[in-house]
Amino acid sequence: MTTPDLVRPAPARPTSGSAHGRPVVPARGARLPLDLTRVTLTEGFWADRQRTNAEQTFAHCEQWMERLGWLANFDRVADGTTGPDRPGWCFSDSEVYKLMEGLAWEVARTGDDAAEAALDRLTRRVAAAQDEDGYLNTCFGHAGQAPRYSDLEMGHELYCVGHLLQAAVARVRTAGPDDLLVDVARRAADHVCATFGPDGNPGICGHPEIEVGLVELGRALGEERYVQQAALFLDRRGHGTLADIPLGRAYFQDDVPIREADVWRGHAVRALYLSAAAVDVAVDQHDGELLDAVTRQWDRTVARRTYLTGGMGSRHQDEGFGEDWELPPDRAYCETCAGIASAMVSWRLYLATGELRYVDLMERTYFNVVATSPRSDGRAFFYANPLHQRTAGGAPDEDEVSPRAEGGVRAAWFDVSCCPTNVARTLASWSAYVAATHGRTLELLQHASGRVEAVLPDGTGDRLVVDVRTRYPEDGVVVVEVAEAPSTPVTLALRVPSWTTTARLTDRGVTREVSAGLATVTRVLVPGEQVRLELDVSPRLTWPDPRIDAVRGCVAVERGPLVLCAQSTDAAGIDLAGVVLDATVEPVSDGDGARVRVRAAASHEQPWAYGPGATDASPGTQGHETDLVLVPYHRWAEQGPAQMRVWLPAR
Amino acid sequence: MTTPDLVRPAPARPTSGSAHGRPVVPARGARLPLDLTRVTLTEGFWADRQRTNAEQTFAHCEQWMERLGWLANFDRVADGTTGPDRPGWCFSDSEVYKLMEGLAWEVARTGDDAAEAALDRLTRRVAAAQDEDGYLNTCFGHAGQAPRYSDLEMGHELYCVGHLLQAAVARVRTAGPDDLLVDVARRAADHVCATFGPDGNPGICGHPEIEVGLVELGRALGEERYVQQAALFLDRRGHGTLADIPLGRAYFQDDVPIREADVWRGHAVRALYLSAAAVDVAVDQHDGELLDAVTRQWDRTVARRTYLTGGMGSRHQDEGFGEDWELPPDRAYCETCAGIASAMVSWRLYLATGELRYVDLMERTYFNVVATSPRSDGRAFFYANPLHQRTAGGAPDEDEVSPRAEGGVRAAWFDVSCCPTNVARTLASWSAYVAATHGRTLELLQHASGRVEAVLPDGTGDRLVVDVRTRYPEDGVVVVEVAEAPSTPVTLALRVPSWTTTARLTDRGVTREVSAGLATVTRVLVPGEQVRLELDVSPRLTWPDPRIDAVRGCVAVERGPLVLCAQSTDAAGIDLAGVVLDATVEPVSDGDGARVRVRAAASHEQPWAYGPGATDASPGTQGHETDLVLVPYHRWAEQGPAQMRVWLPAR
Repeated sequence: MTTPDLVRPAPARPTSGSAHGRPVVPARGARLPLDLTRVTLTEGFWADRQRTNAEQTFAHCEQWMERLGWLANFDRVADGTTGPDRPGWCFSDSEVYKLMEGLAWEVARTGDDAAEAALDRLTRRVAAAQDEDGYLNTCFGHAGQAPRYSDLEMGHELYCVGHLLQAAVARVRTAGPDDLLVDVARRAADHVCATFGPDGNPGICGHPEIEVGLVELGRALGEERYVQQAALFLDRRGHGTLADIPLGRAYFQDDVPIREADVWRGHAVRALYLSAAAVDVAVDQHDGELLDAVTRQWDRTVARRTYLTGGMGSRHQDEGFGEDWELPPDRAYCETCAGIASAMVSWRLYLATGELRYVDLMERTYFNVVATSPRSDGRAFFYANPLHQRTAGGAPDEDEVSPRAEGGVRAAWFDVSCCPTNVARTLASWSAYVAATHGRTLELLQHASGRVEAVLPDGTGDRLVVDVRTRYPEDGVVVVEVAEAPSTPVTLALRVPSWTTTARLTDRGVTREVSAGLATVTRVLVPGEQVRLELDVSPRLTWPDPRIDAVRGCVAVERGPLVLCAQSTDAAGIDLAGVVLDATVEPVSDGDGARVRVRAAASHEQPWAYGPGATDASPGTQGHETDLVLVPYHRWAEQGPAQMRVWLPAR
Repeated sequence: MTTPDLVRPAPARPTSGSAHGRPVVPARGARLPLDLTRVTLTEGFWADRQRTNAEQTFAHCEQWMERLGWLANFDRVADGTTGPDRPGWCFSDSEVYKLMEGLAWEVARTGDDAAEAALDRLTRRVAAAQDEDGYLNTCFGHAGQAPRYSDLEMGHELYCVGHLLQAAVARVRTAGPDDLLVDVARRAADHVCATFGPDGNPGICGHPEIEVGLVELGRALGEERYVQQAALFLDRRGHGTLADIPLGRAYFQDDVPIREADVWRGHAVRALYLSAAAVDVAVDQHDGELLDAVTRQWDRTVARRTYLTGGMGSRHQDEGFGEDWELPPDRAYCETCAGIASAMVSWRLYLATGELRYVDLMERTYFNVVATSPRSDGRAFFYANPLHQRTAGGAPDEDEVSPRAEGGVRAAWFDVSCCPTNVARTLASWSAYVAATHGRTLELLQHASGRVEAVLPDGTGDRLVVDVRTRYPEDGVVVVEVAEAPSTPVTLALRVPSWTTTARLTDRGVTREVSAGLATVTRVLVPGEQVRLELDVSPRLTWPDPRIDAVRGCVAVERGPLVLCAQSTDAAGIDLAGVVLDATVEPVSDGDGARVRVRAAASHEQPWAYGPGATDASPGTQGHETDLVLVPYHRWAEQGPAQMRVWLPAR
């Protein structure tokens, strides 16, 4: 079944300037994104993180990549001294590009001189390494290195170019096309099209990413060829185009064509970057079949292969999805980058359809995966985000590269360090996902204090500007004050998240109950007027589908969009392995966390873990009653290594 | 705390011939093993498997290794034509040696001419590849190959030699020392001692195995140097002797010295082969501290890191142990070889201490891991042995090498094919683990029909010969008839397994209740007399420790030593994902399986798997009541790919 809206002719873009400051600008769709420079967060959860990102994380990433020689790799190509001793994995170039993308958004967001200088510095070094014909990679194709495209399965050459193109998109959409980074990207994209075009090398990259980069740069520069090349890569995939590997071709989604697949499988980030590009191509090419395929995969994956946090990826072995219902909390991989990639797909599907379930998943993922990764100082990161940590990890050495992605402790840098720069670019551009428009409607999607300035896309050029004040997610009150509005009716729509139990909207002194979806006010708005949304963020018990075997008999506590957890540093003297929550007692609010009633039993020794005694049939009858404090999951291990669990056995 | 018995001087071996037909012959210990040629299984569970092994598996393994060039690798070294294009992993030589070990035991067990011819054939090809100085490996050290010992972490050179030595032990203990295989092994062992001795290369092998081979060949040939070299390898390990790898040094137990470790961790087969050797060295060198260390690791691992089946290894990522209580049934690795290796450790600990808990674990592991691997025709094998299979695997291509070890379908051969030959050598020598002696006592440990001939090790030379008749494990009646006995009192001891609920022993018309441990008869036995043991093998419910999060709220059904499972091929029309067992209804016997009462609910769709409804708090209220047939786990997927689960949600 195809989606009718997308195969019908769509209206052209209202204004030529509408792409400014937008990471994703589809040719058509149900919703229009806003310019991130027109969404100014002033305080609160995400503003704090944007500030830390700006003040700490960018420099942190650049310093580590300088120290490890990942930046010098470009210099060595430029001066002809590179060779087989090149440091870093073959995909380390992409970290530089993700940092550059983040810096480009940051320059637009704040006009920060240091960010501009850093971007300029990096761009020059990258540009100097580009070959005459546009090829750009520091790991292949030069003296002493493997030939270009000699390892499409694992070489990541096109993957790296994809991130370069995304960085250039940020630049062209904020500084304009006359820019060195944009030139470099254009030449790289031309080289890719020349090499891998319809009559060229029939290969694809083992790690999707070139596709999403090509589509967006094509959109940004009006180069339809790039979009077509992305479509070609998509169609080539899934036919055993790449060589088989021990993990199987599902690892890089080369097992089944994307149009035929029913669910995401294999390496999570690969699957999600690929699907983001597929939505882009589907929308721009009126390809309803392709859009339906991604929608179908999103539906089944979200229903059966997604963690409560929004995290995706159940297996460490291949950083990949498991089977349906395979969602172990302890061995959850939930890679930070997979959370970012999931939001990339959902945002595109929201823009295409206007359906809020995509925004619901984005919110869940932002608060519980993306925000969990960086430490509050912005200088250490989780790579994997498990929902259960039985043993507190060791204290990290802030001066060492972490060799692996095991959960438990945030590391300053990783051997495979995809997550820090991915967090950096996401936080720098996060404002782009706060609101959207259609017709004479402004939809406020993510609740955060700040100003949102929209030009209504109905052709009138009318501006609707609002100031949002909220302590969300700690508090559920969101006050929207009109700063500027036309003298004709408009619709102000506030998202009521799907987790909402009760919510009320107050407009002109009248309060009414509203339910999950959009709470709307349609009328002539007058500057100074306020609309007030109250969401109940008191802690609530959340139960899993009984088919998720790994958390049978357990309950989690959520509070607004936040998943809560117990951690040993907040549970002195209580063994988290012996806790049983009393589900007959309502959890109560405690700061931005909660307090629950538990029975806590001490650990005991027994020689064999199985026996005739139905010890598990009557849980929670052992031990003493006590209160247990739960904190937002995103904050776990902030005070150092800790045991942690999201799912608590319940009676 | 040291084990006093082992630091006291022990009696010398009673007769010089006492090593014949025994895989393991410690210098001292609480129990003495029997000659496997004096334990003749006539019918039943293990006799059937030994017959299939002899008639099918040996030839199957040889044919596959011929076809893949693993055997020709030896010829190519011999004729100087090997090089970098050598087929197979670097450890493929070891598969040849494990097959040879199995054939050597088989020749002794049955005198089969075909087995003798095969062993002779293989021995000649192997011998021809040995270098002048005793070095023997087809992957390293020859023209076009990496230099000898240039990759101790992952090169497996010493590992391969270890398996060669174990093959030679089988030969020297059955055919005597004047044998080509024994000569080859002696030269290889001498080369290892010369190269890695106290003043030589200070390295160790990334995969333990050389140690257990050296000790036993040292015992078999009276070469104390070999035992000392094994002890040296043991002591070198655990100090970061090997280079770090992404999985960490725990992968190959080089993180902590074995004397200091509290639990098994890292790659399971590596940990277990290492510990088997450690028991050998500890016993022979009166090293109570070392024995206590292994005992401590066994205790904690068995209590907290072992599956109901006896399987070990919770992670696919590194074929390794997880943390305490990390025992997911679906992603259980439970490698067949780890089951074999676990039994190797337990057998040595039993011989050292006489404690039956080791034999209990061996029985559990033999019936539920080792017996599960081979298909009933002996020509396909499980590598991993999960306890839950949500999706039936695809039908295997019997003519293809399986590229991976995922569970679900038995494969004819694997890319890494350690398990088939390991099963083959274990089944060929299985009779060695049926009984043991001490003083004037014969202990019957594993119940199987056949004749057991023992020479009592009290110096008298008295013989005690019994015939066992039983349909165990389908039936719990074990009848032991005396065939030959001295005219002075002896003790006949029958093991009553730890899983036993009720058991009765009948001797001379008197029946008495006996409990887990040994049921003994001490008197003058007269040929023709019978002792009868009756074990209750009716199905029983078994509950997990509540700390095993992955199976909370579930119950398993066991029957005698057998773990049972539900599989889709025996549950037509019932979705195993929606089954809840009614634990108030006793399971009833059904052949060698059971029938249980369940509620079976059909699967349903929902967009998000988490919500406020406590669906899991009242399991088993949905769906219809029906009976579900459970079959022995070792037989699952015999009729083809199937869904399967050992642990059933219960109410």
